[in-house]
Amino acid sequence: MAPAAEDRSPVHRTCTRVRYPETDRMGVAYHAHYLVWFELGRTEMMRAIGAPYGELEDEAGILFPVIEAGARYLRPARYDDVVAIDTTVRAVGGARVRFEYALSREADGERLATGFTEHASVGRDGRPTRLPAELRERLEETREGE
Amino acid sequence: MAPAAEDRSPVHRTCTRVRYPETDRMGVAYHAHYLVWFELGRTEMMRAIGAPYGELEDEAGILFPVIEAGARYLRPARYDDVVAIDTTVRAVGGARVRFEYALSREADGERLATGFTEHASVGRDGRPTRLPAELRERLEETREGE
Amino acid sequence: MAPAAEDRSPVHRTCTRVRYPETDRMGVAYHAHYLVWFELGRTEMMRAIGAPYGELEDEAGILFPVIEAGARYLRPARYDDVVAIDTTVRAVGGARVRFEYALSREADGERLATGFTEHASVGRDGRPTRLPAELRERLEETREGE
Amino acid sequence: MAPAAEDRSPVHRTCTRVRYPETDRMGVAYHAHYLVWFELGRTEMMRAIGAPYGELEDEAGILFPVIEAGARYLRPARYDDVVAIDTTVRAVGGARVRFEYALSREADGERLATGFTEHASVGRDGRPTRLPAELRERLEETREGE
Repeated sequence: MAPAAEDRSPVHRTCTRVRYPETDRMGVAYHAHYLVWFELGRTEMMRAIGAPYGELEDEAGILFPVIEAGARYLRPARYDDVVAIDTTVRAVGGARVRFEYALSREADGERLATGFTEHASVGRDGRPTRLPAELRERLEETREGE
Repeated sequence: MAPAAEDRSPVHRTCTRVRYPETDRMGVAYHAHYLVWFELGRTEMMRAIGAPYGELEDEAGILFPVIEAGARYLRPARYDDVVAIDTTVRAVGGARVRFEYALSREADGERLATGFTEHASVGRDGRPTRLPAELRERLEETREGE
Repeated sequence: MAPAAEDRSPVHRTCTRVRYPETDRMGVAYHAHYLVWFELGRTEMMRAIGAPYGELEDEAGILFPVIEAGARYLRPARYDDVVAIDTTVRAVGGARVRFEYALSREADGERLATGFTEHASVGRDGRPTRLPAELRERLEETREGE
Repeated sequence: MAPAAEDRSPVHRTCTRVRYPETDRMGVAYHAHYLVWFELGRTEMMRAIGAPYGELEDEAGILFPVIEAGARYLRPARYDDVVAIDTTVRAVGGARVRFEYALSREADGERLATGFTEHASVGRDGRPTRLPAELRERLEETREGE
Protein backbone atom coordinates (compact mmCIF):
# COMPACT_ATOMS: atom_id res chain seq x y z
CA MET A 1 0.00 0.00 0.00
CA ALA A 2 2.96 2.31 0.64
CA PRO A 3 4.32 3.79 -2.58
CA ALA A 4 7.12 1.76 -4.06
CA ALA A 5 10.03 3.45 -5.79
CA GLU A 6 8.51 2.81 -9.20
CA ASP A 7 5.30 4.56 -8.18
CA ARG A 8 7.21 7.83 -8.24
CA SER A 9 8.17 7.25 -11.87
CA PRO A 10 6.70 9.63 -14.47
CA VAL A 11 4.05 7.16 -15.55
CA HIS A 12 1.80 5.11 -13.31
CA ARG A 13 0.19 1.95 -14.70
CA THR A 14 -2.95 0.21 -13.53
CA CYS A 15 -5.05 -2.37 -15.32
CA THR A 16 -8.73 -3.11 -15.70
CA ARG A 17 -10.60 -5.85 -17.50
CA VAL A 18 -13.38 -4.91 -19.94
CA ARG A 19 -16.68 -5.84 -18.32
CA TYR A 20 -19.61 -7.31 -20.20
CA PRO A 21 -21.87 -4.29 -19.60
CA GLU A 22 -19.09 -2.03 -20.87
CA THR A 23 -19.53 -3.55 -24.33
CA ASP A 24 -22.28 -2.43 -26.67
CA ARG A 25 -24.06 -4.06 -29.57
CA MET A 26 -21.15 -3.13 -31.85
CA GLY A 27 -19.33 -5.83 -29.85
CA VAL A 28 -16.70 -3.49 -28.40
CA ALA A 29 -16.32 -1.28 -25.33
CA TYR A 30 -18.58 1.78 -25.47
CA HIS A 31 -16.54 4.97 -25.76
CA ALA A 32 -17.89 6.71 -22.64
CA HIS A 33 -16.44 3.99 -20.41
CA TYR A 34 -12.93 5.08 -21.35
CA LEU A 35 -13.52 8.15 -19.19
CA VAL A 36 -14.26 5.79 -16.31
CA TRP A 37 -11.02 3.94 -17.00
CA PHE A 38 -9.18 7.26 -17.02
CA GLU A 39 -10.62 7.78 -13.54
CA LEU A 40 -9.30 4.39 -12.45
CA GLY A 41 -5.88 5.46 -13.71
CA ARG A 42 -5.69 8.71 -11.78
CA THR A 43 -7.31 7.12 -8.70
CA GLU A 44 -4.65 4.44 -8.49
CA MET A 45 -1.89 6.94 -9.26
CA MET A 46 -3.04 9.12 -6.39
CA ARG A 47 -3.26 6.14 -4.06
CA ALA A 48 0.27 5.16 -5.11
CA ILE A 49 1.69 8.57 -4.22
CA GLY A 50 0.02 8.39 -0.82
CA ALA A 51 -2.90 10.71 -1.50
CA PRO A 52 -5.97 8.48 -1.94
CA TYR A 53 -8.72 10.50 -3.59
CA GLY A 54 -11.39 9.36 -1.14
CA GLU A 55 -9.39 10.73 1.78
CA LEU A 56 -8.91 14.05 0.04
CA GLU A 57 -12.68 14.35 -0.24
CA ASP A 58 -13.54 13.03 3.18
CA GLU A 59 -10.74 14.54 5.24
CA ALA A 60 -9.46 17.59 3.40
CA GLY A 61 -12.86 18.41 1.87
CA ILE A 62 -11.25 18.88 -1.54
CA LEU A 63 -13.02 17.81 -4.71
CA PHE A 64 -11.52 17.53 -8.20
CA PRO A 65 -14.42 17.92 -10.62
CA VAL A 66 -13.53 17.36 -14.26
CA ILE A 67 -13.70 20.62 -16.20
CA GLU A 68 -12.50 19.27 -19.51
CA ALA A 69 -11.95 15.81 -20.96
CA GLY A 70 -10.96 14.38 -24.30
CA ALA A 71 -10.19 11.02 -25.87
CA ARG A 72 -8.91 9.66 -29.15
CA TYR A 73 -10.00 6.12 -29.94
CA LEU A 74 -7.46 4.19 -31.97
CA ARG A 75 -8.49 0.55 -31.75
CA PRO A 76 -11.50 -1.10 -30.11
CA ALA A 77 -11.22 -2.72 -26.70
CA ARG A 78 -13.12 -5.98 -26.52
CA TYR A 79 -14.90 -7.94 -23.80
CA ASP A 80 -12.51 -9.46 -21.27
CA ASP A 81 -9.47 -7.64 -22.68
CA VAL A 82 -7.13 -6.45 -19.97
CA VAL A 83 -6.61 -2.74 -20.60
CA ALA A 84 -3.44 -1.13 -19.22
CA ILE A 85 -3.98 2.48 -18.20
CA ASP A 86 -0.83 4.63 -18.10
CA THR A 87 -1.41 7.90 -16.26
CA THR A 88 0.80 10.98 -16.21
CA VAL A 89 0.38 14.30 -14.44
CA ARG A 90 1.03 16.93 -17.09
CA ALA A 91 0.55 20.26 -15.41
CA VAL A 92 -0.17 21.38 -11.90
CA GLY A 93 -1.30 24.96 -11.33
CA GLY A 94 -2.48 26.53 -8.10
CA ALA A 95 -5.97 25.08 -8.38
CA ARG A 96 -5.68 22.96 -11.52
CA VAL A 97 -4.47 19.47 -12.36
CA ARG A 98 -4.22 17.82 -15.76
CA PHE A 99 -3.85 14.09 -16.18
CA GLU A 100 -2.97 12.38 -19.43
CA TYR A 101 -3.72 8.77 -20.25
CA ALA A 102 -2.53 6.15 -22.68
CA LEU A 103 -4.51 2.94 -22.91
CA SER A 104 -3.18 -0.26 -24.39
CA ARG A 105 -4.20 -3.90 -24.61
CA GLU A 106 -2.03 -5.64 -22.07
CA ALA A 107 -1.78 -8.88 -24.02
CA ASP A 108 0.06 -7.41 -27.00
CA GLY A 109 0.79 -3.80 -26.07
CA GLU A 110 -1.40 -2.39 -28.87
CA ARG A 111 -2.29 1.23 -28.20
CA LEU A 112 -6.08 1.56 -27.83
CA ALA A 113 -6.63 5.19 -26.93
CA THR A 114 -5.16 8.36 -25.52
CA GLY A 115 -6.87 11.08 -23.57
CA PHE A 116 -6.75 13.70 -20.87
CA THR A 117 -8.82 15.18 -18.08
CA GLU A 118 -8.42 18.59 -16.55
CA HIS A 119 -9.64 19.18 -13.03
CA ALA A 120 -10.39 22.15 -10.85
CA SER A 121 -9.61 21.94 -7.16
CA VAL A 122 -12.67 23.08 -5.22
CA GLY A 123 -13.85 23.02 -1.63
CA ARG A 124 -17.13 21.63 -0.35
CA ASP A 125 -18.70 25.01 -1.13
CA GLY A 126 -17.82 24.58 -4.79
CA ARG A 127 -15.29 27.42 -4.76
CA PRO A 128 -11.80 27.07 -6.23
CA THR A 129 -9.26 26.22 -3.58
CA ARG A 130 -5.49 25.84 -3.78
CA LEU A 131 -4.18 22.31 -3.74
CA PRO A 132 -2.69 21.45 -0.35
CA ALA A 133 1.07 22.11 -0.59
CA GLU A 134 1.95 18.52 0.25
CA LEU A 135 -0.30 17.09 -2.44
CA ARG A 136 1.06 19.53 -5.00
CA GLU A 137 4.57 18.43 -4.20
CA ARG A 138 3.67 14.78 -4.54
CA LEU A 139 1.94 15.35 -7.85
CA GLU A 140 4.83 17.42 -9.17
CA GLU A 141 7.24 14.66 -8.26
CA THR A 142 5.38 12.38 -10.63
CA ARG A 143 5.37 14.85 -13.50
CA GLU A 144 6.71 13.65 -16.78
CA GLY A 145 10.30 14.63 -17.41
CA GLU A 146 11.19 14.75 -13.74
CA MET B 1 -48.13 17.10 -18.53
CA ALA B 2 -50.27 14.13 -17.55
CA PRO B 3 -53.95 14.31 -16.69
CA ALA B 4 -54.50 14.22 -12.95
CA ALA B 5 -57.27 11.65 -12.95
CA GLU B 6 -55.18 9.07 -14.73
CA ASP B 7 -52.25 9.69 -12.40
CA ARG B 8 -54.28 8.42 -9.48
CA SER B 9 -55.06 5.21 -11.33
CA PRO B 10 -53.58 1.97 -9.97
CA VAL B 11 -50.88 1.78 -12.59
CA HIS B 12 -48.64 4.59 -13.75
CA ARG B 13 -46.97 4.33 -17.16
CA THR B 14 -43.83 6.03 -18.34
CA CYS B 15 -41.64 5.22 -21.31
CA THR B 16 -37.94 5.15 -22.08
CA ARG B 17 -36.01 4.36 -25.21
CA VAL B 18 -33.20 1.79 -25.04
CA ARG B 19 -29.91 3.69 -25.33
CA TYR B 20 -26.93 2.43 -27.28
CA PRO B 21 -24.73 2.04 -24.17
CA GLU B 22 -27.51 0.07 -22.50
CA THR B 23 -26.97 -2.69 -25.07
CA ASP B 24 -24.17 -5.22 -24.71
CA ARG B 25 -22.33 -7.41 -27.16
CA MET B 26 -25.20 -9.91 -27.07
CA GLY B 27 -27.02 -7.17 -29.02
CA VAL B 28 -29.71 -6.60 -26.39
CA ALA B 29 -30.20 -4.44 -23.31
CA TYR B 30 -27.99 -5.53 -20.41
CA HIS B 31 -30.05 -6.87 -17.54
CA ALA B 32 -28.82 -4.46 -14.85
CA HIS B 33 -30.25 -1.49 -16.73
CA TYR B 34 -33.76 -2.80 -16.07
CA LEU B 35 -33.28 -1.74 -12.45
CA VAL B 36 -32.54 1.76 -13.73
CA TRP B 37 -35.75 1.66 -15.77
CA PHE B 38 -37.63 0.54 -12.67
CA GLU B 39 -36.29 3.67 -11.01
CA LEU B 40 -37.57 5.79 -13.90
CA GLY B 41 -40.97 4.20 -13.38
CA ARG B 42 -41.26 4.98 -9.68
CA THR B 43 -39.70 8.43 -10.14
CA GLU B 44 -42.31 9.45 -12.68
CA MET B 45 -45.08 7.88 -10.61
CA MET B 46 -44.04 9.89 -7.58
CA ARG B 47 -43.81 13.05 -9.64
CA ALA B 48 -47.30 12.35 -10.98
CA ILE B 49 -48.81 12.06 -7.50
CA GLY B 50 -47.18 15.35 -6.51
CA ALA B 51 -44.29 13.97 -4.48
CA PRO B 52 -41.17 14.33 -6.66
CA TYR B 53 -38.43 12.17 -5.24
CA GLY B 54 -35.79 14.89 -5.46
CA GLU B 55 -37.87 17.17 -3.25
CA LEU B 56 -38.37 14.42 -0.69
CA GLU B 57 -34.61 14.11 -0.41
CA ASP B 58 -33.79 17.80 -0.52
CA GLU B 59 -36.66 19.21 1.51
CA ALA B 60 -37.94 16.46 3.77
CA GLY B 61 -34.54 14.78 4.13
CA ILE B 62 -36.07 11.39 3.43
CA LEU B 63 -34.23 8.78 1.40
CA PHE B 64 -35.64 5.57 -0.04
CA PRO B 65 -32.71 3.19 -0.40
CA VAL B 66 -33.51 -0.07 -2.14
CA ILE B 67 -33.35 -2.96 0.31
CA GLU B 68 -34.46 -5.67 -2.09
CA ALA B 69 -34.91 -5.92 -5.83
CA GLY B 70 -35.80 -8.64 -8.29
CA ALA B 71 -36.49 -9.04 -11.99
CA ARG B 72 -37.67 -11.71 -14.37
CA TYR B 73 -36.52 -11.30 -17.96
CA LEU B 74 -38.99 -12.63 -20.49
CA ARG B 75 -37.91 -11.21 -23.85
CA PRO B 76 -34.91 -9.09 -24.80
CA ALA B 77 -35.24 -5.33 -25.22
CA ARG B 78 -33.29 -4.07 -28.21
CA TYR B 79 -31.55 -0.85 -29.13
CA ASP B 80 -33.96 2.00 -29.79
CA ASP B 81 -37.00 0.03 -28.59
CA VAL B 82 -39.42 2.17 -26.65
CA VAL B 83 -39.99 0.37 -23.35
CA ALA B 84 -43.20 1.09 -21.46
CA ILE B 85 -42.74 0.89 -17.69
CA ASP B 86 -45.91 0.24 -15.70
CA THR B 87 -45.44 0.94 -12.01
CA THR B 88 -47.67 -0.05 -9.13
CA VAL B 89 -47.37 0.52 -5.39
CA ARG B 90 -47.95 -2.85 -3.78
CA ALA B 91 -47.61 -2.32 -0.08
CA VAL B 92 -47.02 0.63 2.14
CA GLY B 93 -45.93 0.04 5.70
CA GLY B 94 -44.84 2.57 8.27
CA ALA B 95 -41.32 2.81 6.91
CA ARG B 96 -41.51 0.56 3.88
CA VAL B 97 -42.65 0.87 0.29
CA ARG B 98 -42.80 -1.78 -2.39
CA PHE B 99 -43.10 -0.98 -6.06
CA GLU B 100 -43.88 -3.49 -8.77
CA TYR B 101 -43.05 -3.08 -12.43
CA ALA B 102 -44.14 -4.55 -15.73
CA LEU B 103 -42.11 -3.69 -18.79
CA SER B 104 -43.38 -4.07 -22.33
CA ARG B 105 -42.30 -3.09 -25.81
CA GLU B 106 -44.49 -0.15 -26.66
CA ALA B 107 -44.64 -0.94 -30.38
CA ASP B 108 -46.45 -4.25 -29.99
CA GLY B 109 -47.23 -4.58 -26.30
CA GLU B 110 -45.02 -7.63 -25.84
CA ARG B 111 -44.18 -8.17 -22.17
CA LEU B 112 -40.42 -7.88 -21.66
CA ALA B 113 -39.93 -8.19 -17.93
CA THR B 114 -41.49 -7.92 -14.50
CA GLY B 115 -39.88 -6.91 -11.27
CA PHE B 116 -40.07 -5.22 -7.91
CA THR B 117 -38.11 -3.05 -5.56
CA GLU B 118 -38.58 -2.72 -1.84
CA HIS B 119 -37.45 0.43 -0.10
CA ALA B 120 -36.81 1.53 3.44
CA SER B 121 -37.65 5.05 4.41
CA VAL B 122 -34.67 6.55 6.21
CA GLY B 123 -33.57 9.98 7.35
CA ARG B 124 -30.29 11.69 6.54
CA ASP B 125 -28.75 9.86 9.50
CA GLY B 126 -29.56 6.52 7.87
CA ARG B 127 -32.14 5.60 10.50
CA PRO B 128 -35.57 4.28 9.62
CA THR B 129 -38.15 7.01 9.63
CA ARG B 130 -41.89 6.91 9.12
CA LEU B 131 -43.17 8.08 5.78
CA PRO B 132 -44.71 11.54 6.06
CA ALA B 133 -48.46 11.05 6.48
CA GLU B 134 -49.31 13.01 3.37
CA LEU B 135 -46.98 10.97 1.20
CA ARG B 136 -48.34 7.73 2.63
CA GLU B 137 -51.84 8.80 1.76
CA ARG B 138 -50.89 9.67 -1.77
CA LEU B 139 -49.08 6.39 -2.27
CA GLU B 140 -51.96 4.45 -0.80
CA GLU B 141 -54.37 6.15 -3.16
CA THR B 142 -52.43 4.70 -6.06
CA ARG B 143 -52.39 1.19 -4.66
CA GLU B 144 -53.62 -1.55 -6.87
CA GLY B 145 -57.23 -2.46 -6.30
CA GLU B 146 -58.20 1.00 -5.14
CA MET C 1 -42.27 10.97 -36.04
CA ALA C 2 -41.90 12.43 -39.54
CA PRO C 3 -39.36 15.25 -39.65
CA ALA C 4 -40.96 18.63 -39.20
CA ALA C 5 -39.67 21.69 -41.01
CA GLU C 6 -37.77 22.81 -37.94
CA ASP C 7 -35.91 19.50 -37.79
CA ARG C 8 -34.00 20.62 -40.87
CA SER C 9 -32.77 23.69 -39.01
CA PRO C 10 -29.04 23.92 -38.24
CA VAL C 11 -29.47 22.87 -34.64
CA HIS C 12 -31.53 19.96 -33.38
CA ARG C 13 -32.69 19.94 -29.76
CA THR C 14 -33.64 16.99 -27.63
CA CYS C 15 -33.99 16.74 -23.86
CA THR C 16 -33.15 14.22 -21.20
CA ARG C 17 -33.68 14.18 -17.47
CA VAL C 18 -30.71 13.46 -15.18
CA ARG C 19 -31.23 9.98 -13.73
CA TYR C 20 -30.38 9.04 -10.18
CA PRO C 21 -27.62 6.60 -11.18
CA GLU C 22 -26.10 9.30 -13.38
CA THR C 23 -25.27 11.28 -10.25
CA ASP C 24 -22.23 10.49 -8.13
CA ARG C 25 -21.33 11.10 -4.52
CA MET C 26 -20.34 14.68 -5.40
CA GLY C 27 -24.11 15.12 -5.81
CA VAL C 28 -23.95 16.01 -9.51
CA ALA C 29 -24.02 14.16 -12.82
CA TYR C 30 -20.84 12.16 -13.43
CA HIS C 31 -18.88 13.57 -16.36
CA ALA C 32 -18.78 10.40 -18.49
CA HIS C 33 -22.57 10.42 -18.82
CA TYR C 34 -22.37 13.60 -20.87
CA LEU C 35 -20.97 11.47 -23.69
CA VAL C 36 -24.11 9.35 -23.44
CA TRP C 37 -26.24 12.49 -23.64
CA PHE C 38 -24.26 13.57 -26.71
CA GLU C 39 -25.26 10.24 -28.22
CA LEU C 40 -28.91 10.93 -27.41
CA GLY C 41 -28.52 14.26 -29.21
CA ARG C 42 -27.14 12.84 -32.44
CA THR C 43 -29.50 9.85 -32.31
CA GLU C 44 -32.56 12.07 -32.19
CA MET C 45 -31.11 14.41 -34.81
CA MET C 46 -30.60 11.49 -37.18
CA ARG C 47 -34.09 10.21 -36.50
CA ALA C 48 -35.43 13.69 -37.22
CA ILE C 49 -33.74 13.86 -40.62
CA GLY C 50 -35.16 10.47 -41.52
CA ALA C 51 -32.04 8.38 -40.99
CA PRO C 52 -32.51 6.52 -37.69
CA TYR C 53 -29.17 5.21 -36.54
CA GLY C 54 -30.50 1.74 -35.76
CA GLU C 55 -31.68 1.31 -39.34
CA LEU C 56 -28.32 2.41 -40.69
CA GLU C 57 -26.70 -0.34 -38.70
CA ASP C 58 -29.28 -3.00 -39.33
CA GLU C 59 -30.15 -2.30 -42.95
CA ALA C 60 -27.21 -0.49 -44.53
CA GLY C 61 -24.63 -2.24 -42.34
CA ILE C 62 -22.95 1.07 -41.57
CA LEU C 63 -21.49 1.79 -38.14
CA PHE C 64 -20.32 5.15 -36.81
CA PRO C 65 -17.75 4.37 -34.13
CA VAL C 66 -16.51 7.40 -32.20
CA ILE C 67 -12.89 8.13 -33.06
CA GLU C 68 -12.53 11.28 -30.98
CA ALA C 69 -14.59 12.96 -28.31
CA GLY C 70 -14.23 15.96 -26.06
CA ALA C 71 -16.22 17.90 -23.51
CA ARG C 72 -15.92 21.09 -21.50
CA TYR C 73 -17.88 21.11 -18.26
CA LEU C 74 -19.11 24.56 -17.28
CA ARG C 75 -21.71 24.02 -14.58
CA PRO C 76 -22.88 20.85 -12.85
CA ALA C 77 -26.08 19.10 -13.91
CA ARG C 78 -28.09 17.89 -10.95
CA TYR C 79 -30.47 15.02 -10.30
CA ASP C 80 -33.80 15.45 -12.05
CA ASP C 81 -32.63 18.50 -14.05
CA VAL C 82 -33.95 18.48 -17.58
CA VAL C 83 -30.91 18.88 -19.83
CA ALA C 84 -31.44 20.30 -23.31
CA ILE C 85 -29.02 18.85 -25.86
CA ASP C 86 -28.44 20.99 -28.95
CA THR C 87 -26.73 19.04 -31.72
CA THR C 88 -25.10 20.38 -34.87
CA VAL C 89 -23.34 18.60 -37.71
CA ARG C 90 -20.08 20.46 -38.21
CA ALA C 91 -18.28 18.71 -40.99
CA VAL C 92 -19.04 15.82 -43.28
CA GLY C 93 -16.21 14.21 -45.20
CA GLY C 94 -16.36 11.12 -47.37
CA ALA C 95 -16.18 8.74 -44.42
CA ARG C 96 -16.24 11.15 -41.47
CA VAL C 97 -18.87 13.01 -39.49
CA ARG C 98 -18.39 15.50 -36.69
CA PHE C 99 -21.16 16.45 -34.31
CA GLU C 100 -21.03 19.34 -31.89
CA TYR C 101 -23.13 19.65 -28.78
CA ALA C 102 -24.23 22.37 -26.41
CA LEU C 103 -25.95 21.33 -23.19
CA SER C 104 -28.07 23.64 -21.09
CA ARG C 105 -30.43 23.39 -18.16
CA GLU C 106 -33.87 23.64 -19.67
CA ALA C 107 -35.40 25.41 -16.68
CA ASP C 108 -33.25 28.53 -16.92
CA GLY C 109 -31.20 28.14 -20.09
CA GLU C 110 -27.88 28.04 -18.20
CA ARG C 111 -25.15 26.52 -20.35
CA LEU C 112 -23.84 23.34 -18.72
CA ALA C 113 -21.33 21.94 -21.19
CA THR C 114 -20.12 21.87 -24.76
CA GLY C 115 -18.53 19.03 -26.65
CA PHE C 116 -18.00 17.16 -29.86
CA THR C 117 -17.69 13.66 -31.23
CA GLU C 118 -15.99 12.65 -34.44
CA HIS C 119 -17.04 9.44 -36.13
CA ALA C 120 -15.68 7.19 -38.81
CA SER C 121 -18.09 5.53 -41.17
CA VAL C 122 -17.25 1.83 -41.33
CA GLY C 123 -18.84 -1.32 -42.68
CA ARG C 124 -19.54 -4.51 -40.76
CA ASP C 125 -15.98 -5.60 -41.58
CA GLY C 126 -14.62 -2.58 -39.72
CA ARG C 127 -13.28 -0.95 -42.89
CA PRO C 128 -13.91 2.71 -43.71
CA THR C 129 -16.82 3.11 -46.06
CA ARG C 130 -18.24 6.19 -47.75
CA LEU C 131 -21.44 7.56 -46.30
CA PRO C 132 -24.43 6.69 -48.47
CA ALA C 133 -25.03 9.69 -50.76
CA GLU C 134 -28.55 10.23 -49.49
CA LEU C 135 -27.44 10.31 -45.85
CA ARG C 136 -24.63 12.71 -46.69
CA GLU C 137 -27.08 15.06 -48.32
CA ARG C 138 -29.40 14.95 -45.36
CA LEU C 139 -26.60 15.61 -42.92
CA GLU C 140 -25.24 18.43 -45.05
CA GLU C 141 -28.66 20.02 -45.13
CA THR C 142 -28.55 20.29 -41.36
CA ARG C 143 -25.08 21.80 -41.28
CA GLU C 144 -24.72 25.01 -39.41
CA GLY C 145 -24.84 28.06 -41.64
CA GLU C 146 -27.03 26.41 -44.22
CA MET D 1 -3.10 -16.28 -10.26
CA ALA D 2 -5.29 -18.41 -8.02
CA PRO D 3 -4.40 -21.84 -6.76
CA ALA D 4 -6.25 -24.55 -8.66
CA ALA D 5 -7.31 -26.52 -5.59
CA GLU D 6 -9.10 -23.57 -4.07
CA ASP D 7 -10.82 -22.78 -7.37
CA ARG D 8 -12.64 -26.10 -7.18
CA SER D 9 -13.90 -25.27 -3.73
CA PRO D 10 -17.63 -24.62 -3.30
CA VAL D 11 -17.22 -20.88 -3.20
CA HIS D 12 -15.14 -18.74 -5.50
CA ARG D 13 -14.06 -15.30 -4.32
CA THR D 14 -13.12 -12.31 -6.43
CA CYS D 15 -12.85 -8.66 -5.42
CA THR D 16 -13.71 -5.33 -6.96
CA ARG D 17 -13.25 -1.79 -5.76
CA VAL D 18 -16.25 0.57 -5.76
CA ARG D 19 -15.72 3.08 -8.56
CA TYR D 20 -16.61 6.75 -8.31
CA PRO D 21 -19.31 6.55 -11.02
CA GLU D 22 -20.83 3.56 -9.20
CA THR D 23 -21.75 5.88 -6.34
CA ASP D 24 -24.82 8.09 -6.47
CA ARG D 25 -25.80 11.30 -4.73
CA MET D 26 -26.83 9.28 -1.65
CA GLY D 27 -23.06 8.79 -1.29
CA VAL D 28 -23.17 5.00 -1.67
CA ALA D 29 -23.00 2.48 -4.48
CA TYR D 30 -26.14 2.51 -6.64
CA HIS D 31 -28.05 -0.75 -6.30
CA ALA D 32 -28.06 -1.73 -9.99
CA HIS D 33 -24.26 -2.00 -10.00
CA TYR D 34 -24.48 -4.97 -7.66
CA LEU D 35 -25.78 -6.97 -10.62
CA VAL D 36 -22.62 -6.00 -12.48
CA TRP D 37 -20.54 -7.18 -9.53
CA PHE D 38 -22.47 -10.46 -9.55
CA GLU D 39 -21.38 -10.79 -13.17
CA LEU D 40 -17.75 -10.20 -12.16
CA GLY D 41 -18.16 -12.99 -9.64
CA ARG D 42 -19.46 -15.60 -12.05
CA THR D 43 -17.04 -14.47 -14.78
CA GLU D 44 -14.03 -15.03 -12.57
CA MET D 45 -15.45 -18.29 -11.24
CA MET D 46 -15.86 -19.59 -14.77
CA ARG D 47 -12.36 -18.46 -15.70
CA ALA D 48 -11.05 -20.25 -12.61
CA ILE D 49 -12.66 -23.56 -13.60
CA GLY D 50 -11.18 -23.27 -17.07
CA ALA D 51 -14.28 -22.15 -18.94
CA PRO D 52 -13.86 -18.41 -19.61
CA TYR D 53 -17.19 -16.95 -20.55
CA GLY D 54 -15.83 -15.04 -23.55
CA GLU D 55 -14.59 -18.26 -25.10
CA LEU D 56 -17.93 -19.96 -24.57
CA GLU D 57 -19.56 -17.20 -26.56
CA ASP D 58 -16.91 -16.88 -29.23
CA GLU D 59 -15.98 -20.51 -29.71
CA ALA D 60 -18.91 -22.64 -28.59
CA GLY D 61 -21.51 -20.04 -29.58
CA ILE D 62 -23.26 -20.43 -26.23
CA LEU D 63 -24.80 -17.46 -24.46
CA PHE D 64 -26.05 -17.31 -20.88
CA PRO D 65 -28.67 -14.57 -20.80
CA VAL D 66 -29.99 -13.76 -17.34
CA ILE D 67 -33.61 -14.84 -17.00
CA GLU D 68 -34.04 -13.93 -13.37
CA ALA D 69 -32.07 -11.91 -10.85
CA GLY D 70 -32.54 -10.78 -7.29
CA ALA D 71 -30.63 -8.96 -4.59
CA ARG D 72 -31.02 -8.10 -0.92
CA TYR D 73 -29.14 -5.02 0.20
CA LEU D 74 -27.97 -5.21 3.79
CA ARG D 75 -25.42 -2.42 4.22
CA PRO D 76 -24.24 0.25 1.81
CA ALA D 77 -21.00 -0.14 -0.12
CA ARG D 78 -19.06 3.10 -0.27
CA TYR D 79 -16.63 4.68 -2.71
CA ASP D 80 -13.28 2.91 -2.80
CA ASP D 81 -14.45 0.03 -0.60
CA VAL D 82 -13.06 -3.30 -1.73
CA VAL D 83 -16.05 -5.60 -2.15
CA ALA D 84 -15.46 -9.34 -1.93
CA ILE D 85 -17.80 -11.31 -4.18
CA ASP D 86 -18.35 -14.94 -3.19
CA THR D 87 -19.96 -16.95 -5.96
CA THR D 88 -21.55 -20.37 -5.75
CA VAL D 89 -23.22 -22.53 -8.39
CA ARG D 90 -26.51 -23.62 -6.89
CA ALA D 91 -28.21 -25.74 -9.49
CA VAL D 92 -27.32 -26.95 -12.92
CA GLY D 93 -30.06 -28.26 -15.15
CA GLY D 94 -29.82 -29.30 -18.76
CA ALA D 95 -30.07 -25.76 -20.05
CA ARG D 96 -30.10 -23.75 -16.83
CA VAL D 97 -27.56 -22.44 -14.37
CA ARG D 98 -28.12 -20.62 -11.11
CA PHE D 99 -25.41 -18.64 -9.37
CA GLU D 100 -25.64 -17.28 -5.86
CA TYR D 101 -23.62 -14.41 -4.50
CA ALA D 102 -22.62 -13.04 -1.14
CA LEU D 103 -20.97 -9.65 -1.04
CA SER D 104 -18.94 -8.38 1.87
CA ARG D 105 -16.64 -5.48 2.64
CA GLU D 106 -13.18 -6.96 2.47
CA ALA D 107 -11.74 -4.67 5.14
CA ASP D 108 -13.91 -5.95 7.97
CA GLY D 109 -15.91 -8.83 6.51
CA GLU D 110 -19.26 -7.07 6.95
CA ARG D 111 -21.93 -8.66 4.78
CA LEU D 112 -23.21 -6.09 2.27
CA ALA D 113 -25.63 -8.02 0.09
CA THR D 114 -26.77 -11.38 -1.17
CA GLY D 115 -28.27 -12.26 -4.49
CA PHE D 116 -28.70 -14.69 -7.33
CA THR D 117 -28.94 -14.87 -11.08
CA GLU D 118 -30.53 -17.59 -13.12
CA HIS D 119 -29.39 -18.13 -16.69
CA ALA D 120 -30.66 -19.95 -19.71
CA SER D 121 -28.19 -21.60 -22.00
CA VAL D 122 -28.97 -20.57 -25.56
CA GLY D 123 -27.28 -20.78 -28.94
CA ARG D 124 -26.60 -17.90 -31.30
CA ASP D 125 -30.11 -18.39 -32.69
CA GLY D 126 -31.56 -17.63 -29.26
CA ARG D 127 -32.85 -21.19 -28.77
CA PRO D 128 -32.27 -23.14 -25.58
CA THR D 129 -29.31 -25.44 -25.89
CA ARG D 130 -27.89 -28.01 -23.49
CA LEU D 131 -24.76 -27.01 -21.65
CA PRO D 132 -21.69 -28.74 -23.12
CA ALA D 133 -21.09 -31.87 -21.03
CA GLU D 134 -17.60 -30.78 -20.03
CA LEU D 135 -18.78 -27.41 -18.79
CA ARG D 136 -21.62 -29.02 -16.85
CA GLU D 137 -19.18 -31.31 -15.14
CA ARG D 138 -16.90 -28.46 -14.20
CA LEU D 139 -19.77 -26.40 -12.85
CA GLU D 140 -21.12 -29.36 -10.92
CA GLU D 141 -17.73 -29.93 -9.36
CA THR D 142 -17.94 -26.45 -7.84
CA ARG D 143 -21.42 -26.92 -6.46
CA GLU D 144 -21.93 -26.21 -2.83
CA GLY D 145 -21.74 -29.27 -0.66
CA GLU D 146 -19.28 -31.05 -2.87
